[in-house]
Amino acid sequence: MIKNALLEIKRGSSELIGEERLISCLKKWFESGRNWYVKAGFDPTAPDLHLGHTVLFSKLARLQQYGAIVQFLIGDFTATIGDPTGKNQMRKVLSREEVLLNAQTYKEQVFKLLDPQKTQTVFNSEWLSAMSAADLIALARETSVARMLERDDFEKRYRSRTPIAISEFLYPLLQGYDSVKLKSDMELGGNDQKFNLLMGRQLQKTYGLEEQVVMTMPLLVGLDGTQKMSKSLNNYVGVSENADTQYAKILSIDDEQMWRWYELLSFKTLEEIEGLKTSGEHPKAIKEALALELTARYHGEEAAQNAKNEFDRVHKRGEIPSQTELFCFDAPVWIGKAFMEAKLVESTSELSRMIQSRSVKLNGELVTNFKSELGIGEYVAQAGKRKFARIKVG
Amino acid sequence: MIKNALLEIKRGSSELIGEERLISCLKKWFESGRNWYVKAGFDPTAPDLHLGHTVLFSKLARLQQYGAIVQFLIGDFTATIGDPTGKNQMRKVLSREEVLLNAQTYKEQVFKLLDPQKTQTVFNSEWLSAMSAADLIALARETSVARMLERDDFEKRYRSRTPIAISEFLYPLLQGYDSVKLKSDMELGGNDQKFNLLMGRQLQKTYGLEEQVVMTMPLLVGLDGTQKMSKSLNNYVGVSENADTQYAKILSIDDEQMWRWYELLSFKTLEEIEGLKTSGEHPKAIKEALALELTARYHGEEAAQNAKNEFDRVHKRGEIPSQTELFCFDAPVWIGKAFMEAKLVESTSELSRMIQSRSVKLNGELVTNFKSELGIGEYVAQAGKRKFARIKVG
Repeated sequence: MIKNALLEIKRGSSELIGEERLISCLKKWFESGRNWYVKAGFDPTAPDLHLGHTVLFSKLARLQQYGAIVQFLIGDFTATIGDPTGKNQMRKVLSREEVLLNAQTYKEQVFKLLDPQKTQTVFNSEWLSAMSAADLIALARETSVARMLERDDFEKRYRSRTPIAISEFLYPLLQGYDSVKLKSDMELGGNDQKFNLLMGRQLQKTYGLEEQVVMTMPLLVGLDGTQKMSKSLNNYVGVSENADTQYAKILSIDDEQMWRWYELLSFKTLEEIEGLKTSGEHPKAIKEALALELTARYHGEEAAQNAKNEFDRVHKRGEIPSQTELFCFDAPVWIGKAFMEAKLVESTSELSRMIQSRSVKLNGELVTNFKSELGIGEYVAQAGKRKFARIKVG
Repeated sequence: MIKNALLEIKRGSSELIGEERLISCLKKWFESGRNWYVKAGFDPTAPDLHLGHTVLFSKLARLQQYGAIVQFLIGDFTATIGDPTGKNQMRKVLSREEVLLNAQTYKEQVFKLLDPQKTQTVFNSEWLSAMSAADLIALARETSVARMLERDDFEKRYRSRTPIAISEFLYPLLQGYDSVKLKSDMELGGNDQKFNLLMGRQLQKTYGLEEQVVMTMPLLVGLDGTQKMSKSLNNYVGVSENADTQYAKILSIDDEQMWRWYELLSFKTLEEIEGLKTSGEHPKAIKEALALELTARYHGEEAAQNAKNEFDRVHKRGEIPSQTELFCFDAPVWIGKAFMEAKLVESTSELSRMIQSRSVKLNGELVTNFKSELGIGEYVAQAGKRKFARIKVG
């Protein structure tokens, strides 16, 4: 039983440090139902999550199934520190209200994955605001400059002579101290957080506590299949995007990535996934199941099913989407003007190119003449695979 | 007038940064008697000062003559920070009582040079104890890791892989912040303090204050004429040593060093010193004047004069010291036993060697026989140049 749990817990992860303690927590849970505590820290900046972020939340949700109480830590302390001289206008300082508002937005998105009954939301300002400079100095005795400069990003910046403020050396210490205050049994974070997570272990030991288990997770690769998922690269699936968009975007990933997404994001067990692999089903169908599962997580089963139906209508059966906007003209109109006003193209030269590449249709028939005019009547106009409009003339 | 003052102020110093501001302070003092403020920081550990330490105090005393109020800063804050885990038994933490006691001892020694009316004793725990961790982090934003590693000692330790605790990066910031709180016009320190003194300038600027003048002083070379004065090298003159010892030790330095000591320690003006140089007096006499001045500073004119007289009696006129201990024996005694008990030698073999090198005398006459016996009578016994005892037999 524990062996199986361990396999599920380690699935997709980059590294696990302190496995013996994890086993001991699981044993106690299986034997006596005793809960254990997993910390995960997040920025208090306004969150707008995409699936990349949910790698961690999916893992936390999985841990909750094995008795873990999630310590959902909002690292609000440093964000509320102002510049004492009032000179640094560039630095955005968050007010208490903003932090609470952001935390609420976070929770709304996160509780689509996590069990709220097994989640404690904590703010580190609770203990760090009361901390004195003397306490912080004492904490800063516990590690060395050389050790801190071993951290990948610090080392790179130091080498390339990009300034590192002394304050940045204090943040890992504070993050580690959070683990002391929360007496966490385990901490979960991205690969880039490994150093800070280990700092938690070190400080817990210094303060006479048992060292937390540390687990790091890889970054999710985005829709392009090569780079990490991010808003700025426009290769993301947003948690708040509508069901149609989520479903369509997820279906666009390639097969190799699909299995990685199953591993990192799906709530299916390893056994079920193995079953899919050996089922002989067409990868397209397996991808549809993934898209359905993930879309349903954020919008419910029905909305996910509707998104699938809509997608199939347009892309499999070539029908027009059910929600297609209508544009009306009083008198016969040139195709260029009609397509521009219906926002099917951005310019008439774009339309010209699309006609030449045989991707413009009226009522399902190819348009070949750039000078065509639409006479009185009703039309379904199509530009490329996805853009549709209904046009009524007269 | 200001030109002259500047010459006296810069005399013997290693570096002066911000001379324009110093001139402006002096101008105001000469024109309207307005005081200005010079900070100098000291450890709160139990002080036992030697002349090396007094280089700074002599300079401060000089500055007081030109309107400076000395901010005698006891850096007690960091010394009172304990180890929060209570595990580090090695670290000596000073209690408030110890700090106050040490400060008192300091002042007793220091006010032999400084004018107490123009000295403010301040403890940085006054403002630093109330500082929050958040304030310290904000302060730590003001400088970079690379900048801190430029400090000579840090750089050497980093290169040689000797650990530097993160806390050590915070101390220069706190020391600089002291200058902000004290609104110091100038700070004085040893050469090794230059980095920290400049940090004071940087932080004052950050906090919208005018930057302090920074003056650094060299280390005093000890009696051996090569290494810096220090207790452990036994090349020092202690402020608390008795007048005889001080006078004799100071007379032992060579001529080159004598002029350096005049520059760094004497209260004579540059003009007076120039006068000595061209007076044609024998260097020995000029050295006696220095020894008299410095001894008088710590023990008064009379004691200094007595020390000179005593020195001259023994070393110039070959008389025995006025304070010579008496040892009594009931019956005739072997010279070896007598010299051992009178603590003139450490062993009889030492005595044997000294007799062979013709440096043992009884009543002024050379002793040549190791087997000599002292019959009934009174003796002045001498071993080497400086060790004397009176011995009475019967």
